[in-house]
Amino acid sequence: MNVFPELSPSLRTIMTPGPVEVDPRVLRAMSYPILGQFDPEFTNLMNNTMAMLRQLFQTSNQWAYPVDGTSRSGIEAVLTALIEPGDRVLVPIYGRFGHLLVEIAERCGAEVSIIETTWGEVFDPQTVIDEMHKVKPHLVAMVHGETSTGRVQPLADIGRACREADVLFAVDAVATIGGVPVETDAWFIDAVIGGTQKCISVPSGMAPISYNERAERKILSRKRVERGLRSGQQEKVEGFRIQSNYLDLSQLQDYWSPARLNHHTEMTSMLYGLHEGLRILLAEGLEARFARHLLHEEALVAGLQAMELPLYGNPACKLPVVTCIEIPDGIDGESVRAMLLERFSIEIASSFGPLKGKIWRIGTMGYSCNRKNVLHLLGALEAVLLRHGLKLPAGAGVQAALDVYDKHERIA
Amino acid sequence: MNVFPELSPSLRTIMTPGPVEVDPRVLRAMSYPILGQFDPEFTNLMNNTMAMLRQLFQTSNQWAYPVDGTSRSGIEAVLTALIEPGDRVLVPIYGRFGHLLVEIAERCGAEVSIIETTWGEVFDPQTVIDEMHKVKPHLVAMVHGETSTGRVQPLADIGRACREADVLFAVDAVATIGGVPVETDAWFIDAVIGGTQKCISVPSGMAPISYNERAERKILSRKRVERGLRSGQQEKVEGFRIQSNYLDLSQLQDYWSPARLNHHTEMTSMLYGLHEGLRILLAEGLEARFARHLLHEEALVAGLQAMELPLYGNPACKLPVVTCIEIPDGIDGESVRAMLLERFSIEIASSFGPLKGKIWRIGTMGYSCNRKNVLHLLGALEAVLLRHGLKLPAGAGVQAALDVYDKHERIA
Repeated sequence: MNVFPELSPSLRTIMTPGPVEVDPRVLRAMSYPILGQFDPEFTNLMNNTMAMLRQLFQTSNQWAYPVDGTSRSGIEAVLTALIEPGDRVLVPIYGRFGHLLVEIAERCGAEVSIIETTWGEVFDPQTVIDEMHKVKPHLVAMVHGETSTGRVQPLADIGRACREADVLFAVDAVATIGGVPVETDAWFIDAVIGGTQKCISVPSGMAPISYNERAERKILSRKRVERGLRSGQQEKVEGFRIQSNYLDLSQLQDYWSPARLNHHTEMTSMLYGLHEGLRILLAEGLEARFARHLLHEEALVAGLQAMELPLYGNPACKLPVVTCIEIPDGIDGESVRAMLLERFSIEIASSFGPLKGKIWRIGTMGYSCNRKNVLHLLGALEAVLLRHGLKLPAGAGVQAALDVYDKHERIA
Repeated sequence: MNVFPELSPSLRTIMTPGPVEVDPRVLRAMSYPILGQFDPEFTNLMNNTMAMLRQLFQTSNQWAYPVDGTSRSGIEAVLTALIEPGDRVLVPIYGRFGHLLVEIAERCGAEVSIIETTWGEVFDPQTVIDEMHKVKPHLVAMVHGETSTGRVQPLADIGRACREADVLFAVDAVATIGGVPVETDAWFIDAVIGGTQKCISVPSGMAPISYNERAERKILSRKRVERGLRSGQQEKVEGFRIQSNYLDLSQLQDYWSPARLNHHTEMTSMLYGLHEGLRILLAEGLEARFARHLLHEEALVAGLQAMELPLYGNPACKLPVVTCIEIPDGIDGESVRAMLLERFSIEIASSFGPLKGKIWRIGTMGYSCNRKNVLHLLGALEAVLLRHGLKLPAGAGVQAALDVYDKHERIA
């Protein structure tokens, strides 16, 4: 047998748009001995987690629970539940994760209509609304915060228009939930998907979702009880059967309901982590948390601008938790990232598709979004860029960020 | 904001057929600070995990990696990859989890043929082979160890016959992997699914799978590169597109290959746990681990028989890691389970469908499979049954189990 040495991961400063660093209290919770999935203590934790998710999603929906998989499992669970073969779906795309929505919707058998805008921009809501009236889709699916381009799409007007037209509105809020306001009810979102490993700062592995009664009606019209659990004859199913069993929301909501109808075996340790992450998040308070993300964004941006590094994208729709830098001419972006990681143990990200090799992306999310990390990153990035031969005003980046922090402390 | 108290789960003795107790070394690993998913340290851990999974599955397959979801996500990933709409699939059923295979295969659009045998029995392999020759399916899917009935199905002859007939053979080894021999290559299994939360004793949340080149050929014939990651024109796809994106093995194997093509964000902390669980398992050694499971089964069965509790099912095909007891007449099975949990902090399981309320199921799996747990359980069960008015030879159960341990210590 070939046995490997025990785990001993290096301590990294993670400044990517996810996954990001995890609060030690969350990590500690993940190391607690497990409970059985039907232990009343555990089902109580499941209920408390639902109650906290409702607050996070700013919703009065009954259904707010995690899907047991990484973020895209939540997106697929929602789209698979809400899209029947042949349904018309409108997806406005302004970055990579819009394409993912199309990819998944197509696999659900949807007739997908796409509108695209330039990467680095978002849509004027009226453009989406006009297209929605033209296409008359069953569902509009959109990304709230695009980590691939660092942009955030205003949603309230689109949500209202969808509701008025009786069109379902599903939103990928994986990158924004917990760092930027996501107002599920106020923005008329019928189904919303969050991610754990970004602004919630819990390790990747669960996808919190919430949906309202409009979405639930569609889901229940397609419900089947699983073979081997049914008593008697299978009830008549109105709509197309949901194509996944693992991601079948009609079954998952039974498992999360007082009926506790057996489905998968809940991920105990991930739920411990999510429970603790939500506790910490709500104790900080949503408003305070959003303000903290804005403060560190301001310091980071001030530092980068003082270093004369051009920021990517339209600043009017910048996503506060992701800052994108255009890689200067003549600089090998991957070499800079590698040196940051190897010498300074700091990780930043590159991007995808048309932006691959063109921009760096820096995340200021959740637990990683703090003064120490911003200041270390600016100092290290300066050192690495100097080492790569780039001319820049040495020392200016960290000083500019310190100025921002000093200014806010004077105000506070 | 309504904030809940911090986590403080009770310490349970978990003697169900999963999830079971987790080795403290695995729990410790899950509390380590995370690495980014493309950090070379992390991708190295991914590679080491694959190498250890090959040993666990006793295979020389290239592909052995976890699917990021609970066990049934692995089953669905394998079936969704190997079944195209209209494919004929044969599922021999001898318990609840055979029904799950049918459920999932139907959702993949399969034309499913079923043979069933009485719960508490397994199939004579020749029965399955004859049916396979009659149905001429593309795929035979079977459960190796049925936790719902506590039985284990011999697979080698069925596997050989499938290979000779050029039929794919997929096996759900969720309950057996790590506790009972699972010989992927020697038994001609084309695709096999394991579970973490049973004999591997890692928390629920990942589904290790392995598949060979025969399975891979089917998967690659259906491959598409994801929108937003494609360069240029989409290649022509031969077979039906795989209906899930999240569980698409053609994409997952690219993510687990040196290409590291971006898909989901790997579950860092779960991977830490799996890595450490596999290390501990291989350090114990597969043969020693299987022998340990047999020893504690022997002690448990001796104790239950000394208490004059009738065991459920055909002993010739008993699954060593699950022992089922027929609930004595006049005893409320759920009341006994509740008292075991509340007074003794010990959890055992009930069962499903036709066996609901008829049997208790006791797991001796992985880290939970130890002398202390067997002896505590026997003593506590006796006390609870006496408290429920059952007549039994008091003291005999624990003494009989101690006799088994003493005998083995004399031999060793």
